[in-house]
Amino acid sequence: MAVTAMPRARFSEAEWRTRVDLAACYRLIDLFGWSDLINTRTTARIPGPAEHFLINRFGMLYDEVTASSLIKIDSEGNNVEPSDEPVNRGGFTLPAVVHRARPDVACCIHTHTVAGCAVSMQKDGLLPLNQHALQVIGDIAYHDYEGTGRSDGERSRFLADFGDKHIMVLRNHGLFVIGRTIAEAFIATTGWSGPARCSWPFSNPVRRSIR
Amino acid sequence: MAVTAMPRARFSEAEWRTRVDLAACYRLIDLFGWSDLINTRTTARIPGPAEHFLINRFGMLYDEVTASSLIKIDSEGNNVEPSDEPVNRGGFTLPAVVHRARPDVACCIHTHTVAGCAVSMQKDGLLPLNQHALQVIGDIAYHDYEGTGRSDGERSRFLADFGDKHIMVLRNHGLFVIGRTIAEAFIATTGWSGPARCSWPFSNPVRRSIR
Amino acid sequence: MAVTAMPRARFSEAEWRTRVDLAACYRLIDLFGWSDLINTRTTARIPGPAEHFLINRFGMLYDEVTASSLIKIDSEGNNVEPSDEPVNRGGFTLPAVVHRARPDVACCIHTHTVAGCAVSMQKDGLLPLNQHALQVIGDIAYHDYEGTGRSDGERSRFLADFGDKHIMVLRNHGLFVIGRTIAEAFIATTGWSGPARCSWPFSNPVRRSIR
Amino acid sequence: MAVTAMPRARFSEAEWRTRVDLAACYRLIDLFGWSDLINTRTTARIPGPAEHFLINRFGMLYDEVTASSLIKIDSEGNNVEPSDEPVNRGGFTLPAVVHRARPDVACCIHTHTVAGCAVSMQKDGLLPLNQHALQVIGDIAYHDYEGTGRSDGERSRFLADFGDKHIMVLRNHGLFVIGRTIAEAFIATTGWSGPARCSWPFSNPVRRSIR
Repeated sequence: MAVTAMPRARFSEAEWRTRVDLAACYRLIDLFGWSDLINTRTTARIPGPAEHFLINRFGMLYDEVTASSLIKIDSEGNNVEPSDEPVNRGGFTLPAVVHRARPDVACCIHTHTVAGCAVSMQKDGLLPLNQHALQVIGDIAYHDYEGTGRSDGERSRFLADFGDKHIMVLRNHGLFVIGRTIAEAFIATTGWSGPARCSWPFSNPVRRSIR
Repeated sequence: MAVTAMPRARFSEAEWRTRVDLAACYRLIDLFGWSDLINTRTTARIPGPAEHFLINRFGMLYDEVTASSLIKIDSEGNNVEPSDEPVNRGGFTLPAVVHRARPDVACCIHTHTVAGCAVSMQKDGLLPLNQHALQVIGDIAYHDYEGTGRSDGERSRFLADFGDKHIMVLRNHGLFVIGRTIAEAFIATTGWSGPARCSWPFSNPVRRSIR
Repeated sequence: MAVTAMPRARFSEAEWRTRVDLAACYRLIDLFGWSDLINTRTTARIPGPAEHFLINRFGMLYDEVTASSLIKIDSEGNNVEPSDEPVNRGGFTLPAVVHRARPDVACCIHTHTVAGCAVSMQKDGLLPLNQHALQVIGDIAYHDYEGTGRSDGERSRFLADFGDKHIMVLRNHGLFVIGRTIAEAFIATTGWSGPARCSWPFSNPVRRSIR
Repeated sequence: MAVTAMPRARFSEAEWRTRVDLAACYRLIDLFGWSDLINTRTTARIPGPAEHFLINRFGMLYDEVTASSLIKIDSEGNNVEPSDEPVNRGGFTLPAVVHRARPDVACCIHTHTVAGCAVSMQKDGLLPLNQHALQVIGDIAYHDYEGTGRSDGERSRFLADFGDKHIMVLRNHGLFVIGRTIAEAFIATTGWSGPARCSWPFSNPVRRSIR
């Protein structure tokens, strides 16, 4: 798409607003130092009757994402419009589980920060050691690591583990946060980040079997 | 207020100097990496017979604060002048306790740095392990965490715990520093920051009851 | 060489592409914070029948390296073209061992990052504590520290320890990564960096004899 | 001194070169993140028969120091030329001990880095855990902390503890490095910095009596 194109005209007002907010979210994640090259993703639901979602173009760094470059996909990760843009369908697996099962979830943010990964490696997870932690600790779920392949069985366990929480610690992996708006998911990620950074050196990790 | 307004004309010389110093203090806190988005605050007393104070406009980031944007409030957190600017009255609770009880205190700086929070989570607090620590350790008070609601009883205990010290470790929370001038409070915060950064990985935290 | 020279004309297309990629690799290593002044190096094989390699000019910082400033050497570290540019022949010792023995290796990246050195100081090396670690842990070799002098015996042990892995932890020293392309070696270094940063504070180092 | 003055004309060639190198050293210390506001100092001997030294103007930050702003003092810390520039005589105490006793020492660098302070707080000091450490460990001396007042007795013990080493760990305080040139002292500080940053989280500090 040429720089001189007028992308906004191609989208409904609702889709355009979602694109702008989601692109801003990618940029903020980069600004806060939470990105991991191309290895995580943030997805958002486009309001409306169709089950359409936005995701970053595979291979694009977080500080490169723009409103227009986001790709519209259905709940299976297929391109909605004819496109030769690459989609990270494997990366959409986990967000898709949540987006399909919970229409109230507008946004999924998945991160691999050093502090977040380190707390995810600790047997006790985030401890209630300070006020920052108290603000999020009641909203944290945990999901055990089952390997990189996602089976149907794991999808069910993942949703069950989530329950009604917004912050999911993917044990020995990272963080997965959901929100009813993009802003809510971002704020929850921020709320997790503070206590994680204070706490991560304090506990001992547990060596877990990977089978 | 328009950018072209001449704000200084609206203020007494004493108030204007306090505004400039306090805004500089907000900017320095940001520059030193001690800010926590909109979650802490710094307040200053305006010299003069009236019990008036300055606080940041709620929602403004530390690197956005200007001398003119600071809001004048009384010791209850009410706007002194007609204004629709939002005031973080909950955030003024703790500074108000100090400002009302101790006219000698010109400035309260409250921070949530990673090192400061981490030391606040340690049973022994700051240990006398190096020369930096010796320079402040005699001036440090500790106040146990009692939850997010501030009762009258806690206000009394908070003042009693402070005694004649300038640096208060809010256990399992963060730091609260006072000074007879804005500069003094800033320097004391700096003096705490060095030993906290050297020391925080060394002690074990204690899990505290939050009731 | 004057700035106005047209360096590309002096090189074959294959050499020029290797120069551009290797210089980009030096710049990326600097950008990611993995450089250590002039104390490590990255080398690349120039495709073709001759056993020629590129290395940085000794004394040049990583953010100063350019495609044209790289020096062409043979497998003994001798300048291939008449030149008074200094070559770090001692620094080429270890890469030379790999480049001579394994024609499939196009690039060697040697780093001394804080996290990488710290993990190299730990008895158990990198632990399988998170998904990042799982992505590289099967591709990691370990070589015990034998001192700064490199004997013929050590060269054999170094190659034997490497086996068919791409990531070598030089115990009590740092990291040595190889790839069939410059990009592959860089990506493997990136893949190591994440779990190393999450893991390094968790294990206890072991004091090793240096004889 | 006005910006338009030609400071160089006021100085001998030897003094001017020392000024330029020492100012560069201050700037590099700031660039490497080793400065501590106005709380440390670096001093250099001006070559020549007179026992004259250069020190930063008290109150100037490291990134503000210029060749012309450095102050010329004698071995007692007195201004050599009529000047109303403030000299940190207390801060010159320790460098003066070395400069007077050892004419071979051209430069003293005193720092309070987080990693350096943290290692200084550890009973065993820097451990021989990696190659970086091996490069400096034979050149490290230790001096126990005796408080902030420097007695004649301590000066003797300080020199005796230094022996013929270049890197002095001031226990529970920081680092003091000397060199026969400004560059040598800077390189030695760099050589210490790497292993200190790798090692500081690994050992347990010891609580020392401060009397």
